[in-house]
Amino acid sequence: MHAMANGKGLSTYLPIIEVARSYRREDLPHDVVAGVAVGMLTVPQAVAYALLAGLPAQAGLYACLAPMVIHALLSSSRQLIVGPVAIAALMVASTVGQHAAAYSDAYLGITTVLSLQVGLILILLRALQVGGIVNLLSHPVISGFVNGAAVIIIISQLAPLTGIATTSRLDDGAVDRIAVLVRSVAEVNPTAIALGVGSLLLMAAVRRWGPALVRSGNRTGEDGDVRQALGRTGPVLVTVLGTAVVAGFGLDVGVVGSVPAGLPELTLPLLDAQLWWDLAPNAVLIALVAFVESYSIGKTLASRQRRRIDSHQELVALGAANIGASLSGAYPVAGSFSRSSVNYASGARTPVSALVCAVIIVLTLLWLTPLFANLPHAVLAAVVIVAVYELADFRSVVRDWRFYRGDVLTHFATFAGVLFAGVEAGLLIGVGISVVLFMRGSARPHIAVVGRLGDTPHFRNVKRYEVRTWPHLVAARIDESFYFANADTLESRLAELLDAPEDGDRGQAVEHLLIIMSAVNFIDTTGLEMLKRLTHRLARRGVAMHLCEIKGPVRDQLEHVAVDDWLTGRVFQTTDDAFNALTEAAGKWVWRDVPESEKD
Amino acid sequence: MHAMANGKGLSTYLPIIEVARSYRREDLPHDVVAGVAVGMLTVPQAVAYALLAGLPAQAGLYACLAPMVIHALLSSSRQLIVGPVAIAALMVASTVGQHAAAYSDAYLGITTVLSLQVGLILILLRALQVGGIVNLLSHPVISGFVNGAAVIIIISQLAPLTGIATTSRLDDGAVDRIAVLVRSVAEVNPTAIALGVGSLLLMAAVRRWGPALVRSGNRTGEDGDVRQALGRTGPVLVTVLGTAVVAGFGLDVGVVGSVPAGLPELTLPLLDAQLWWDLAPNAVLIALVAFVESYSIGKTLASRQRRRIDSHQELVALGAANIGASLSGAYPVAGSFSRSSVNYASGARTPVSALVCAVIIVLTLLWLTPLFANLPHAVLAAVVIVAVYELADFRSVVRDWRFYRGDVLTHFATFAGVLFAGVEAGLLIGVGISVVLFMRGSARPHIAVVGRLGDTPHFRNVKRYEVRTWPHLVAARIDESFYFANADTLESRLAELLDAPEDGDRGQAVEHLLIIMSAVNFIDTTGLEMLKRLTHRLARRGVAMHLCEIKGPVRDQLEHVAVDDWLTGRVFQTTDDAFNALTEAAGKWVWRDVPESEKD
Repeated sequence: MHAMANGKGLSTYLPIIEVARSYRREDLPHDVVAGVAVGMLTVPQAVAYALLAGLPAQAGLYACLAPMVIHALLSSSRQLIVGPVAIAALMVASTVGQHAAAYSDAYLGITTVLSLQVGLILILLRALQVGGIVNLLSHPVISGFVNGAAVIIIISQLAPLTGIATTSRLDDGAVDRIAVLVRSVAEVNPTAIALGVGSLLLMAAVRRWGPALVRSGNRTGEDGDVRQALGRTGPVLVTVLGTAVVAGFGLDVGVVGSVPAGLPELTLPLLDAQLWWDLAPNAVLIALVAFVESYSIGKTLASRQRRRIDSHQELVALGAANIGASLSGAYPVAGSFSRSSVNYASGARTPVSALVCAVIIVLTLLWLTPLFANLPHAVLAAVVIVAVYELADFRSVVRDWRFYRGDVLTHFATFAGVLFAGVEAGLLIGVGISVVLFMRGSARPHIAVVGRLGDTPHFRNVKRYEVRTWPHLVAARIDESFYFANADTLESRLAELLDAPEDGDRGQAVEHLLIIMSAVNFIDTTGLEMLKRLTHRLARRGVAMHLCEIKGPVRDQLEHVAVDDWLTGRVFQTTDDAFNALTEAAGKWVWRDVPESEKD
Repeated sequence: MHAMANGKGLSTYLPIIEVARSYRREDLPHDVVAGVAVGMLTVPQAVAYALLAGLPAQAGLYACLAPMVIHALLSSSRQLIVGPVAIAALMVASTVGQHAAAYSDAYLGITTVLSLQVGLILILLRALQVGGIVNLLSHPVISGFVNGAAVIIIISQLAPLTGIATTSRLDDGAVDRIAVLVRSVAEVNPTAIALGVGSLLLMAAVRRWGPALVRSGNRTGEDGDVRQALGRTGPVLVTVLGTAVVAGFGLDVGVVGSVPAGLPELTLPLLDAQLWWDLAPNAVLIALVAFVESYSIGKTLASRQRRRIDSHQELVALGAANIGASLSGAYPVAGSFSRSSVNYASGARTPVSALVCAVIIVLTLLWLTPLFANLPHAVLAAVVIVAVYELADFRSVVRDWRFYRGDVLTHFATFAGVLFAGVEAGLLIGVGISVVLFMRGSARPHIAVVGRLGDTPHFRNVKRYEVRTWPHLVAARIDESFYFANADTLESRLAELLDAPEDGDRGQAVEHLLIIMSAVNFIDTTGLEMLKRLTHRLARRGVAMHLCEIKGPVRDQLEHVAVDDWLTGRVFQTTDDAFNALTEAAGKWVWRDVPESEKD
C-alpha cells in the first residue's frame, strides 16, 4: 500500500475533474457503448445478488446508482465498476442473517447500518494511514476465501435453481445447507429445473462460441476485447428469454414478482449502539475484502493501460460509495470483476461509462420494473452460479504446491474454514495461519559461524569456505532481527554453539562469543531480555559476549539501555576489528565482571 | 522453543529417575526445609486463589496434591513448583463464570473439564511439536496481561478486604466491578477492614525488615537466599494471626467456614460436546499463559544453577499436572512465581522438596481443615493482593519506551484490553498488535540502490559510497523476503525507482532493472505474482528485469515456476557477473519478448 498522489490539488481528491478537463469528444461513443453493455449485464446481476444477500430486488438496483456514481467521481481507476457483488452479498447474508429474517424491513434496516460502517471503516483506514492492513489478506487467503464462498453460493443457489422453497438460514454453513436440500428433494419443480439448467447451458454456449461471432484473425487487441465482451452477454440473454418464456406460456415457477418502480429515497441508518457494536467486527471484514477485491481489479485494469491507481484514493472512493449505499437503501458494494471486465473490454475510456450505466439503471427503475414480475428465480440462480464459477480458481493452487507449500496450506485452511466454520471465521483462520507460517520462518533464523578468509578483512561461513578460526573465539552471524518469536530459539542455539562449535570440538576453550549483527534491523524487549540473559549465562561459564557490525538504529536502541554496563565484552565497529582485537589478545583477554545490579 | 533432550532413555521422559539415581543423603535436609517452607506458604495461597477462582477452599488444596506431585515426577526443572496461581484463577473465573454460578457444584464440574482440556492441549502441543506457538506471547504481551490481571484481581479483592458481600459476576470487567463496589460502599465492615489492612501492613513490614533478622555482611549467596525466604513468611503469619484473632475474640467478619476434611476423590470430567466446544478457545489461552509463565520461571531458576530445562518435557509435565488436577477435582495449575522462589531460596536441591510440600498439604487436609472455620476472607484478600502486587511491573515499561516503542504500545493495548474488553480478549488483542507491529517492519523493506566500488567486484549503496553507476542500469538490493505483507509496497517502490533513480535523474534511459536477492529467504505466491506483474509492467516501458545472487531454496522455487519463460532478462549468479554482462552490452542488450501466454 503506497500513496501515489504527489500533487495536493483538488483533482487529487476528485479525479473526475482531471477526467473532465482532458475529456475528448471522441471518447464519448466508446464510453456510451461500454456503459450500455455494462448496464445490460448489471440489471440481472443486481437483482440476483440482492436476493442472495437476503434483500428485495430493488436494493440491488439501488446499489448501482448512488454508490456507482459516487465511486466514478472519486476513483483514480478509469474502468473499475463498483456495485453489488456476490462475495459481499454472501457476507451480508451471513452477518445480517443472525439478526433478522431475510427480506424483512428490519433486515434491510440492519443492512444499511452495515453499509455505513463499511464506508466509515474504509475512510478511517485512509485517515489513519493504516490501509496497509489489507496486505494481511494475502493471495492464498483471498483465493481460499473466494473459492469457499463460491462453493457456498453455488450450494445456496441449488434451491432456487430447482424450484425448492428452501428453509436454510442465510448464515447456515455448507453442511447445513446441503442437509436442508436433501430433505426437500421431493419438492423440486421440473419447470424450474428446465429453466435453470437451460440458462446454464445457454450461458456456457455464449461464453464458448459467442466470441466467434466476430471474425478476426487477431486474437488480441480491440477485436479481441469486443469478442470478450460478446462472450459475457449470456446473463442478459437468459434473463430476457427466461422472462419472455414464463410470461408467454404462463409457467408455474418462482418469480421475482412485483418490484416497486421509482428511484431510491434517502434513508437514515438506525442509531442503535448495541447493533453497531455487534455488527462492527463483520463490517471490518467486509470492508477489507471489498477493498482488496476492488483494488486488485482496478490495479490490473490500470496496469494494462500503463496507468497507476492510488490506493489511498481508492479507500476514499470505495468508502464514500458504501456510505452512499447506506443512505440510499442499498447494501455494501465492491468492485465487480465481471462488470469491470466488460466495461474495459467494451472500450470504456473514462468513468463516464459508469454514468451511462447509471442512466440505464434509472430507466430500468422507472419503466422496466413490471418485467421483473415474470423473471424466474431459477434463471437468476443460473446467473449467480455462472458468475461465481468464474471467480473460483483451484488450478493455480496446484501450481502453487510446487512453488510454496505454506500458501497451499493457507488456501485450504481458509477454504475449509469458510465452508465449515463460517464466512468470517474462515477469513480469520486464513489470516492467522498465513501470519503464523510467515513468522515460523523468522522464528528459526539462519546462524552462520564465520571465520577469516585467509588474511583478508572478509569473513565467511565455516561450513562452506576454508577459513581461519581460533579455538577461543566463536563468531556467529545471525540473519534476522532479535524479537519475540525467535528470542528463545536464538538463546538455545547460541548456547549450544559453544558446546559443539560447528567448526569442530574445542572443548572448554571458548572464551569469546562474537555476535555479528549486520542483518539485525531491530531488537524488541523480548530480544533484549534474551541478550542480557545469555550474556549472564555465558559469563558464569567464563565466556565474554561481544557485538559487532551493529546498524545505526540498533546501536541507538542499545545505547538507551546502557549496553556498556551489562555487556561482558566489547562493541566493535567491524568484524575485522573484532577479530583483530580478540585473536591478538588470545588467552589474555580480561573480561569485566557482571555488575551486581544486573545479576538475575 | 527448542528440544534439548538428546538421549531417548526412560529418564528423559521421567526426569525423576535421574534425580533418584543421583540423590545424595545430604540433599535431604535441604529439600525437607524447603518443602516445609513452601508448604506453609502454599496453604493460605491455595485457599485464597480457590475463592478467587470461584471454587470451594478445598479445590485449591487439591490443586497442590496430584498436580504438584505429577509435575515433580515429570519436570526437567528442579525447583519449579506448580499449583494454584492467581492469573489462572482469574482466567478460570472469567471462563467458567459465563456458564455457572460461582461456588456451585456445576461450576466445579465445568472447571474440571477446563483443567482436562488445558492438560490435553499442552500434551497435544508437544505431540505435534508446535510448542513454538507460545513464543507469540511476547514479553510485552505477557507483562501487559499480567499487569491488567493484577489490577482486576486487586479490584476483585477490595470487596472481601472491606467486608462487602459483592454481587459482581466473576466475568465482569474492571469498570463493572468498581461500579458494584461504589454502590455497596455503605456495607463496609470496619472489623474486616482492620484485619485486611492490618494484614497488608504486616506483610509489607515482614517483606521489608524480615530479611534483616538474619545478620550477614554478604548480600548474596546462601545467606541472601535465606533472607529472601524470610521476607516471604508474611502470608503464613497473617493467616495464623488472623485466624487466632477471629477465633479468640469471636469477631464478626466473613470467614472461609467449614472445609471438608480428607483427600480428594477421583472425579471424571463431564463429557458434554457443546460444553467442550464452548470452553476450548479459553482452554487454549489458559494453557498458553500457564505454560509461558511456568517455563519462564523454570528457565530463570535453572539458569542460576547453570542447568537447562527442556521445553518439550515441560509441556508434558504441565499437561500431565493439569490432567491430574482435572481428575482430582482441582482447577488449572501453573508454575507459581512466589512459591518457586521460596523453594529455591530455602535451598531446595531436587523435586523432593515438592513431595515434602505435598505431605504438608495432606496433613492440612486430614487434620487442619477445622482451623479454616475462623480464617477471615479479609486476610486472604490481603494475601492475594500482596502476591499479585509483586507480579505487576510497570517500571520496566517506562524503560522500554526508549528502547522499543512498539513494545510499549503492545503492553498498554494488552493492559487496556484486559481491563476493558476482558481477560481473553485482552490477550488476543496483545498478540494481534505485536504481530502486526512486527510485520509492519518487514512490510516496508529496505531497498538499497547499489553501484560498483571502483573496479572491484564489490557493490555498495549509492547513497553512502562513491560508486560507479551506469545510466541504463538500476541495481537494487532488497533486504527482505518477497511475501504478502510487502509485495504491494515493493512493486510500487521498484517502479518509482525507475522514474526517479536515487543516484540522479536518468530520464527514460533505463533499460535494465537488476534485483539483487541476497537477502531473500523465500518468495510466497503473493510475492511471485508481484514479480511477474512488475516484469510485465516494466516490459511495456522497455525495461528488462534481471535477478542475481539468488539463494538455493529460492532458486528451486523459481525453477518450479519456469522463471526463464517469463523473465524478460536473465538470472545471474553474482552481482559482478550481472554488471559485467549488462554494462558491457550497454545499449546493445536485446531483451526477449514477453510470451503471449503470460500477458495479463
